[in-house]
Amino acid sequence: MKALGEHRRTIWPDRDGRSVQVIDQRWLPHRFEVRRLTEVAEVVTAISDMWVRGAPLIGVSAAYGMALQAAADPSDAALGRAAEALCAARPTAVNLVWAVQRVRAALRAEAPARRAEAAWALAAAMADEDVAVNRAIGRHGLPLLQAVAARRAGPVQVLTHCNAGWLATVDWGTALAPIYAAQAAGLDVHVWVDETRPRNQGASLTAWELAQQGVAHTVVADNAGGHLMQRGQVDLVLVGCDRVSARGDVCNKIGTYLKALAALDNGVPFYAAMPLSTLDLSIADGLTGIPIEERAGHELTHLWGCTPDGVLTEVQVIAAGSAVANPAFDVTPARLVTGLVTERGCVPADEAALRALATQEGT
Amino acid sequence: MKALGEHRRTIWPDRDGRSVQVIDQRWLPHRFEVRRLTEVAEVVTAISDMWVRGAPLIGVSAAYGMALQAAADPSDAALGRAAEALCAARPTAVNLVWAVQRVRAALRAEAPARRAEAAWALAAAMADEDVAVNRAIGRHGLPLLQAVAARRAGPVQVLTHCNAGWLATVDWGTALAPIYAAQAAGLDVHVWVDETRPRNQGASLTAWELAQQGVAHTVVADNAGGHLMQRGQVDLVLVGCDRVSARGDVCNKIGTYLKALAALDNGVPFYAAMPLSTLDLSIADGLTGIPIEERAGHELTHLWGCTPDGVLTEVQVIAAGSAVANPAFDVTPARLVTGLVTERGCVPADEAALRALATQEGT
Repeated sequence: MKALGEHRRTIWPDRDGRSVQVIDQRWLPHRFEVRRLTEVAEVVTAISDMWVRGAPLIGVSAAYGMALQAAADPSDAALGRAAEALCAARPTAVNLVWAVQRVRAALRAEAPARRAEAAWALAAAMADEDVAVNRAIGRHGLPLLQAVAARRAGPVQVLTHCNAGWLATVDWGTALAPIYAAQAAGLDVHVWVDETRPRNQGASLTAWELAQQGVAHTVVADNAGGHLMQRGQVDLVLVGCDRVSARGDVCNKIGTYLKALAALDNGVPFYAAMPLSTLDLSIADGLTGIPIEERAGHELTHLWGCTPDGVLTEVQVIAAGSAVANPAFDVTPARLVTGLVTERGCVPADEAALRALATQEGT
Repeated sequence: MKALGEHRRTIWPDRDGRSVQVIDQRWLPHRFEVRRLTEVAEVVTAISDMWVRGAPLIGVSAAYGMALQAAADPSDAALGRAAEALCAARPTAVNLVWAVQRVRAALRAEAPARRAEAAWALAAAMADEDVAVNRAIGRHGLPLLQAVAARRAGPVQVLTHCNAGWLATVDWGTALAPIYAAQAAGLDVHVWVDETRPRNQGASLTAWELAQQGVAHTVVADNAGGHLMQRGQVDLVLVGCDRVSARGDVCNKIGTYLKALAALDNGVPFYAAMPLSTLDLSIADGLTGIPIEERAGHELTHLWGCTPDGVLTEVQVIAAGSAVANPAFDVTPARLVTGLVTERGCVPADEAALRALATQEGT
C-alpha cells in the first residue's frame, strides 16, 4: 500500500542481501521513519519494542532476523541462539515461534555455506505468502461491500476496530484488505475508525494508513460505534482477529465484543477477517478456552502525543492513586458473528464449516 | 464528600456574602485548585470554560452568579444582562436556563434593596435542594447494592461510565450517591470506572473522587466493560443520565448504550440514576426525539496530561489528515434499562410508572 505517495511493504530486504528495512511504527502518525536492521539483535529490539507489530509482520520480521544471523554466522549454535532471542521478543506471539521454527527447520537441512541464501529466499517467500493470503481475503471480502453498493447510493460505510491493515501485515492487511480491494474496484467507501484505547491503534495506525491510501475515513471514540449503528450510519462491521475457536468465537482487540453486540441490536452484519493461521481447532469454546492477556497498566495511564511545539512526549492521564486494569483482548461469541472472511472464502462462524475449510488443501 | 481529607461541596459561598468558591475541575486529577468568584463575569467564565461542569452544579453556579450580580447592582437591567450572559455560557444546558430564570423570577418580586439577600438565600436553598435530591437517590439506590452483598461474599462490583459523582453536582452525585451510601453503610464496594473518552471524565474525575473518598475502584478503557461482564466481574451497571424520555429511554454520555447491551447479554442489571429534573415527558421516543450534541473534534484529537517533568500540557494524538466525529451522548432504549433510581424511589423504565412518579407531590 501507499505511504508518502510510494507503494511500500512494511518490511523489505536490501539488495545487498545484508540488511532489511522496516517502517518504525512507534511514531506514527506523527513521524514516518524507516529503519535498517543489519543484525539479529536489532530485529529482536524491533519486535520487542514494537517498531513492528501485528502477528503476520512479526513472523516475517523474525524470519528475516534468522536470515541476518545465517549471513553473519550460519552455525547451528549461532542459529539456535538467534532463534531463542527472537522467540523471547514477544512471549505471547504464536506466529513468531512458528516463523522462527520454520526457518530453523529449513536451514538444518542445508549445509552451513548455503544457509544464508536459503534463509533469505525463505523469508522472502514467507513475506510473499502473507501478501497472497491478504490479497485473497480482500478478494473474498469485496462482495460484501459490493452488495451494499448495489443496494443503495452513497458510500459503503464500514466500521473497524484496532489496526488490521497493511501495517499489521506485510501488505494489504486482513480486515482492511476488502476495503482496499473495494477502493481498487472503484467503490465509494467510507471507514469509521475506532480510536481503540488504550493503545490507540485505530487512531494512530488505521487512520494513518487509510489517509495515505486516500480512503475516506472518520476517527471516532470507541464509545461512538453503537450510536452510529442506531442512526443507520454503518453498513457492516469488519475487524481482524487474533485467534478463532473451532466453533467460531472470535478473540480480537478488547472492545470488539461491544461492537458485535451493537451490530446485532441494529441488524448490521459483523464480519471478522481471518487468515486460516489464526484458526485454533484445539479450542471449542473461545470464552473459556482462549487466554486473555492482561497488559501493563501504563498503556492506560500514559500516552504519547505531539505537543504544540511538535515534540513527541508521553503524558500521564490517570492519577497514580487509582488502580487500572488492562485486558488486551475479548472474545466475541460465534452467535454474534455473521461470517468469517478467509483466504479460501467467506464462511459462517460454525464448527462444521470451519473444519471443512481447514481440511481443504491450500487454494 | 471528601477532597484532600476535608469534607467539601463543589461550590460554597464565602461568609462575607460577596463571593463564592468553586473547585476548578479542569486540572483534576493532576491539580486541586479552588477559585474564588467575585462577579458574574467570572461565573460565566467558570461555566463556559468548564471549571465547573455537570448539569446540577452548573445550575447552582448560575444561581450564585445571579446573587453576585444582585449584590453589585440589583437593577432589573443589570440582572437581565447577567441572566443573558449566564444562559449563553453553555448553550445546551437546560438546567442552566431553568436555574437563572428561577432566581430572576424570585428577584422581580423583591424591592432592589432586598434582592441581594434574597438571591443569596435562594442560591443556598437550590444548593441544599440538590444535595437532598442526591442523598435521596443514594438512599433509594442502596438496596440494589445491599441485595448483592446479601447474596454472596466479596465486594459488590459496580461499573459506571463518565462522571455522575459529587463533582457533577453540589454533593453526593447521582450515580455515585448509592455507592457513597453503601460505603457509609459499611458495604464492601468496588467500582469499575470507564475512562470515558473523549473527555476522560471517568479517568479524571470519577476515579479522583472515589480515591479521595476511599472507595476501592479500578479504571478501565471503555472497551473493557463487556469483557468484565462476560467474566462475571460486574454485579450491576449504574450510570447517570442527561435526559430521560417519557417511556424511559436514557440519554447519557456516549458509550452508555454499549454497556447496556453488554449488561443485557450477560444478565447484569443496568440502572440509571435519574433526578426527576431530567425526566422529559414531552418526548416519548428518546432515539428519535432527543437531540444529540456533536462536539468539537478537538476533544478527540487532543488531550491534557502531565509530562514526566510534572508540566500539564495538551498533546495531539490523532493526525490532522484524518476527519473525526464526536457525538457526545447516546440513547439507551428503555428495553435495556432495568430501572431508574430517582429521589422518590426506584422505578422501571416504563411510561406509566414514570408519569405516576412525576405527578406525585414532592416527597
